Amino acid sequence: MSQKETRLDIVRAQYALYKERPLDLTIARGIPSKKQLKLSEGLVNDVKIDDWVSEDDIDIRNYGGLYGIKEARALFGSLLNTTVEETFVGGNSSLQLMFAVLSHHLFTKDKAWNKSKDQPVKFLCPSPGYDRHWFMLEHLGIEMIPVELTGNGPDMEVVEKLVSQDPSIKGMFVVPKYNNPTGESVSDDVVDRLAAMHTAADDFLILWDNAYVVHHLRDEKVEVKDIFKASKAAGNPDRVIQFVSTSKMTLPGAGVAAMGASVDNLKEMADHFGKQLISFDKINQKRHVAFLKDRETIEAHMEKHAEILAPKFDWIEAILSAYFHGDRESFVSWTSPQGGYFVHLTTDEGCASKVVEKMTDIGISLTPANAAYPYGINPLDNSIRLAPSFATLDHLEIAMEALCVCIEMVTLEKYESL
Amino acid sequence: MSQKETRLDIVRAQYALYKERPLDLTIARGIPSKKQLKLSEGLVNDVKIDDWVSEDDIDIRNYGGLYGIKEARALFGSLLNTTVEETFVGGNSSLQLMFAVLSHHLFTKDKAWNKSKDQPVKFLCPSPGYDRHWFMLEHLGIEMIPVELTGNGPDMEVVEKLVSQDPSIKGMFVVPKYNNPTGESVSDDVVDRLAAMHTAADDFLILWDNAYVVHHLRDEKVEVKDIFKASKAAGNPDRVIQFVSTSKMTLPGAGVAAMGASVDNLKEMADHFGKQLISFDKINQKRHVAFLKDRETIEAHMEKHAEILAPKFDWIEAILSAYFHGDRESFVSWTSPQGGYFVHLTTDEGCASKVVEKMTDIGISLTPANAAYPYGINPLDNSIRLAPSFATLDHLEIAMEALCVCIEMVTLEKYESL
Repeated sequence: MSQKETRLDIVRAQYALYKERPLDLTIARGIPSKKQLKLSEGLVNDVKIDDWVSEDDIDIRNYGGLYGIKEARALFGSLLNTTVEETFVGGNSSLQLMFAVLSHHLFTKDKAWNKSKDQPVKFLCPSPGYDRHWFMLEHLGIEMIPVELTGNGPDMEVVEKLVSQDPSIKGMFVVPKYNNPTGESVSDDVVDRLAAMHTAADDFLILWDNAYVVHHLRDEKVEVKDIFKASKAAGNPDRVIQFVSTSKMTLPGAGVAAMGASVDNLKEMADHFGKQLISFDKINQKRHVAFLKDRETIEAHMEKHAEILAPKFDWIEAILSAYFHGDRESFVSWTSPQGGYFVHLTTDEGCASKVVEKMTDIGISLTPANAAYPYGINPLDNSIRLAPSFATLDHLEIAMEALCVCIEMVTLEKYESL
Repeated sequence: MSQKETRLDIVRAQYALYKERPLDLTIARGIPSKKQLKLSEGLVNDVKIDDWVSEDDIDIRNYGGLYGIKEARALFGSLLNTTVEETFVGGNSSLQLMFAVLSHHLFTKDKAWNKSKDQPVKFLCPSPGYDRHWFMLEHLGIEMIPVELTGNGPDMEVVEKLVSQDPSIKGMFVVPKYNNPTGESVSDDVVDRLAAMHTAADDFLILWDNAYVVHHLRDEKVEVKDIFKASKAAGNPDRVIQFVSTSKMTLPGAGVAAMGASVDNLKEMADHFGKQLISFDKINQKRHVAFLKDRETIEAHMEKHAEILAPKFDWIEAILSAYFHGDRESFVSWTSPQGGYFVHLTTDEGCASKVVEKMTDIGISLTPANAAYPYGINPLDNSIRLAPSFATLDHLEIAMEALCVCIEMVTLEKYESL
């Protein structure tokens, strides 16, 4: 027996033990833990509303105020670096705002993208990215073109070349800070180039999903350059629509989402929303203003989340580092994010799907391998997303030990078959 | 001078007085008054949530539970006569649910209505109806075909003929109870015929907007036959989607809306919604269950609304009856609704727009004349909607007196010019 075969025997034996005693754990989705949810119970039970009139004189109990109440627009503006007029506050989901923007531009606006059915509508998809963005684009019939991420955002050489040549490329998604799942943030240079680049489509849109704008894990806080300001300076004020939500600040089930964009873009979207509702939930907006108060209070609140989350990321780092050293160092690489909700693993080529399958078989559910790529297609089959927020530390530790075993086993089996 | 000329002089003189002292009143939209809103302040400030887990084991603070929590589905099912499985609970707007249904059937589902661009998509529009339905259809590019209302719902002779012949007619809106603005409810016969009629389109949809399901004004409560049951019995289980909301039960700014439909229809819509959000606001659903409890509690709560609303309808009836008698009886007819939010006036042909204009000029805003017709087009120009809910009784009285003067003046001027 060679040393490698011996090692494979060992991990197979350990895996067999897992199989005999299957678990029921999930590190599949980026959802807050019960400890985190507790931080915001006061939002529901302690906030009393004694003044029903908003700062802009809207009765928050009644119809009206489609743009959101002024104090909520100001609060979200403080996260987006936008003025009240450049800020639209919606319901409990930023995805829903994105969907509405896409759906309106595709189907209902004057010069709708899909007016001529022959011409496909395409989007650039920095990958690995957020699977729900890709599901949305696919559902809407938008063709997805993956673009590699570099560690500082999308590969701008490729982006600039594609958008300058093809007028059917109508836009792109960017998660600028602590990207899901790679954790990377876009550099100033990427911001400037996205803001200023020539696009063959004169109605090119960047959906700037700032989902993790204040979701730091460490004392060192990443700040991303203001793309809206940059795009205005470059003469493209309508190019960028920014999104943010409190889903991972307060309660995912009852949060508030907002958009930041040019006054023209917001008017266009308000007209569109005005065809489907009379206002979003203004009382929940008021409740959030009372609870989150201002940017400073939000930052302090987010530090409490970080205290709960950071140890999980520390443990992942520690377990992976301890396991994959020496001979095994090349089996997998991983990200060490400064914020956000995910760790991204890059396995040996052709191993990611098998690893996730092995984990599923012992009762540990992960995000499907390669889900972070458009259509779930990643020819290298090497992408796994870890979402440690929901699990307890104990469970996370168990899941990570099993994951190490699975990665080693699948990688060694691959080597053996070569 | 003839008697009629004398009378015109008199009303012109009175109108001139209004012009000298313009008012600032609105009876334009069906929005609850502050007294009504007060009935539901407890929803916001008194409901404490101490159990965060729904009856179907969903943490209402977190992501998940796209169909709504079980107890909310049961509550809304009691209004829609649907089971939990046939009930989907959404956000704060039933219009938003309708928009999503239309938008999905038009653009994103497998056999989408607008897949072939040459073929227009058409809807039947029982008129006078709800202007926001027509705005929605127009925005979505759906061609509207008006169908007369009879006092018991749409003219079924016309409906049956049109839908049996034209496969591009894909659906219709119906406000079955206390229709906006005519106040009429559909008869059992209309329900049965809508449920069973042959449609050339095999994917014909009825959007059954039960906005006033428990919004009675009088002791005598109209009950409408169960169309969902009838459509199942007729072999058309997927034809009808019912909508309801608490906008005019609790708070329009922070209510909950729901759909009732076949399990297949709901699954289709849940898949669609799943591409744009992870769940609606489940805490607000829970809050509503705690506050409204059950159908009986809802009915009792609605009686408090009726106590506030009914006198307004009494006054309208009294003022119009007193003014338009004898010589003037033929100038205008009006509805005396048993529920809902509106009184509909039928003026002499060609008079409605001028009456609304005259009212606007003295500072009383009404819904635009003929807005209850698709595209706002009513060749008879004889339709005015009164929405008395928001105004105080004093203001309503002032507005009604002025309206009588305007109607008489415009009608007499018309006679004079003949």
